[in-house]
Amino acid sequence: MADHTHLPTARDKLLFTPGPLTTSLSVKQAMIHDAGSWHFEFNAIVRRVRESLLRLAELTAGEDFEAILMQGSGTFGIESVIGSVIAPQGRLLVLANGAYGERIAKIAAHLRIDHRVLRSEENTVLNPQQVETLLHDDPAITHVALVHCETTTGILNPLEPIGKVVQRHHRCFIVDAMSSFGAIPIDMRMAGIDYLVSSANKCIEGVPGFSFIIARRTALEATSGYARSLSLDLLGQLQGFEANGQFRFTPPTHAILACAQALRELDEEGGVVARGRRYAANHRVLVAGMRRLGFVPYLNPEIQSFIITAFHSPTDPAFQFSEFYHRLSDRGMIIYPGKLTRVDTFRIGTIGRLFETDIAQLLHAIEDVLRDMKCPLLLDR
Amino acid sequence: MADHTHLPTARDKLLFTPGPLTTSLSVKQAMIHDAGSWHFEFNAIVRRVRESLLRLAELTAGEDFEAILMQGSGTFGIESVIGSVIAPQGRLLVLANGAYGERIAKIAAHLRIDHRVLRSEENTVLNPQQVETLLHDDPAITHVALVHCETTTGILNPLEPIGKVVQRHHRCFIVDAMSSFGAIPIDMRMAGIDYLVSSANKCIEGVPGFSFIIARRTALEATSGYARSLSLDLLGQLQGFEANGQFRFTPPTHAILACAQALRELDEEGGVVARGRRYAANHRVLVAGMRRLGFVPYLNPEIQSFIITAFHSPTDPAFQFSEFYHRLSDRGMIIYPGKLTRVDTFRIGTIGRLFETDIAQLLHAIEDVLRDMKCPLLLDR
Repeated sequence: MADHTHLPTARDKLLFTPGPLTTSLSVKQAMIHDAGSWHFEFNAIVRRVRESLLRLAELTAGEDFEAILMQGSGTFGIESVIGSVIAPQGRLLVLANGAYGERIAKIAAHLRIDHRVLRSEENTVLNPQQVETLLHDDPAITHVALVHCETTTGILNPLEPIGKVVQRHHRCFIVDAMSSFGAIPIDMRMAGIDYLVSSANKCIEGVPGFSFIIARRTALEATSGYARSLSLDLLGQLQGFEANGQFRFTPPTHAILACAQALRELDEEGGVVARGRRYAANHRVLVAGMRRLGFVPYLNPEIQSFIITAFHSPTDPAFQFSEFYHRLSDRGMIIYPGKLTRVDTFRIGTIGRLFETDIAQLLHAIEDVLRDMKCPLLLDR
Repeated sequence: MADHTHLPTARDKLLFTPGPLTTSLSVKQAMIHDAGSWHFEFNAIVRRVRESLLRLAELTAGEDFEAILMQGSGTFGIESVIGSVIAPQGRLLVLANGAYGERIAKIAAHLRIDHRVLRSEENTVLNPQQVETLLHDDPAITHVALVHCETTTGILNPLEPIGKVVQRHHRCFIVDAMSSFGAIPIDMRMAGIDYLVSSANKCIEGVPGFSFIIARRTALEATSGYARSLSLDLLGQLQGFEANGQFRFTPPTHAILACAQALRELDEEGGVVARGRRYAANHRVLVAGMRRLGFVPYLNPEIQSFIITAFHSPTDPAFQFSEFYHRLSDRGMIIYPGKLTRVDTFRIGTIGRLFETDIAQLLHAIEDVLRDMKCPLLLDR
């Protein structure tokens, strides 16, 4: 009956990607249920998910922060903040060292929001001192947006130092913590974050379908009338939850059931620190093994996160990424292409329901594939 | 290990709602897989889903129509059309006889799009002659938006007659076919539809997570630069699919796997006509049974769809909707509250993986609950 084109093997391929990623079977099984989006039992689950997300940020409800779920991908969540919290006469400073920083600028351009971009090289973290100077020199700036872990490279930007600068200059601080939240501890207060955006299908290990925003309530409440969209109206979404516990518009009920289960499993694993420890171990095993095979990471280790790692594509003409990718796929392993503007790289994610043994399996597969592709240079180094 | 708060019984409660709705077990089971959103195997599924949606509208690819999937709820899909295809100097006529028509006007207001609303009473279909007069008198109008089946009441608006008027006046026609597409045959060409919006979790019986737009390619291609959002940029989304087969931003992979399975099951059932026949039978059994119990439908039968039916709430003081709802929920049946502005109603949906036997079961439960609530008047009529 079913067409099994998407199931060529007994097991799903492992996703060494920045998401959608490999999730636990129990997270997926939580979706074998239909829940009514208006029903009180489902609303109770939504409330618990929102409270759990606050706890992950070491906040509790009533502490001037609220977790707001938003339908759509992470980009929808980012756009809901950018489009909802900046006044018509506001000005946004975007800090960018990769595709996701540039995407925030693109959102601002689409929304006709006045903005400027401070860029650093893709292999260089953003500099708090430069932010300081810029905020001093450009008093029209009202909001600053930063990508914490730039998935383009896996670079980890200095969140707290930049946050402290933004806070000292009394600007509003928006953080894209898409691929870091849930595995890298973030202190919202210390970092002076007003709006943090992340997704259900990154380090929380849920499935894609919605993102979430942790918002400083007093900041958000002052934005009434700013929203440039009905669907992505952030304050409207919070008011909806508070009016009757419901989403204003149909939520991805199954993805939310999966998230509730994923949050329980994150708790069982020992929370953010324990999860980060597993990912860090995955990353260490990966980098050591890849170096042994002759691959060179794109970033310096000091600024490299354990979320995703970019490697230089070998210059050996026997190495073609497309063939490499397909041969690994045939072995049940899916890696990720590069996204850099000027350097030829590919990427390997170390988040999701992956363990050191999975990374070891990937490294074996890569070694086999290199032999099959006759890329001996790499192996002989 | 798992917290089974959302699983108080062995089986899920049946959803007699307009969606999210009860889906088949096999549709839900299609989600027990993690797919890579960049991976060619997943892209092939996306392509097939898009082609199947065109076939449901009796169109084939290359026929100047394209099916475009959009992350988020149905409202996100509507907003993606309204916000992407109307020129800055355009003017939208919204035809409204319920909450979903009003929502389109609300979207236009949020997007600062010039618009006017032609309303009819919630129990009265929109009048093609009035549309004709209005289009004649207001040449500034560039686009007309209509809700086909207004879920507020279940009323079915005269799609083709209004479409022909819009076509004759050379305006662009946008149709919200959220709750009708997949069960009521729609001839895009005859009705002169340029953009039709529907959702994966209505008559297609998939799960919530995305909507889709069937767009006339030549119309959409002429809208370059109009999009007021990056996330909801309709032309951008199509261009993304055409560039590399991928979503521009993370898709709800599991919901798409479920949709692929749901589309196969729709095909197996015999397509749109067969599905409509099942829903019509559900509706007939429901209305006959409810009348027998003393309930009065809100709409005249001639304008009532078989999708969802609004009933007057009994005036008997022993009848309290909240108690009625909870008692039915305790029996594993979830119905839907009313959404009318001036009349006290409640609603019962007849779409989703429901059969006449399920409707009969609901009717028995309603009868029991009425006895328990001591509403004998209804039973004695």
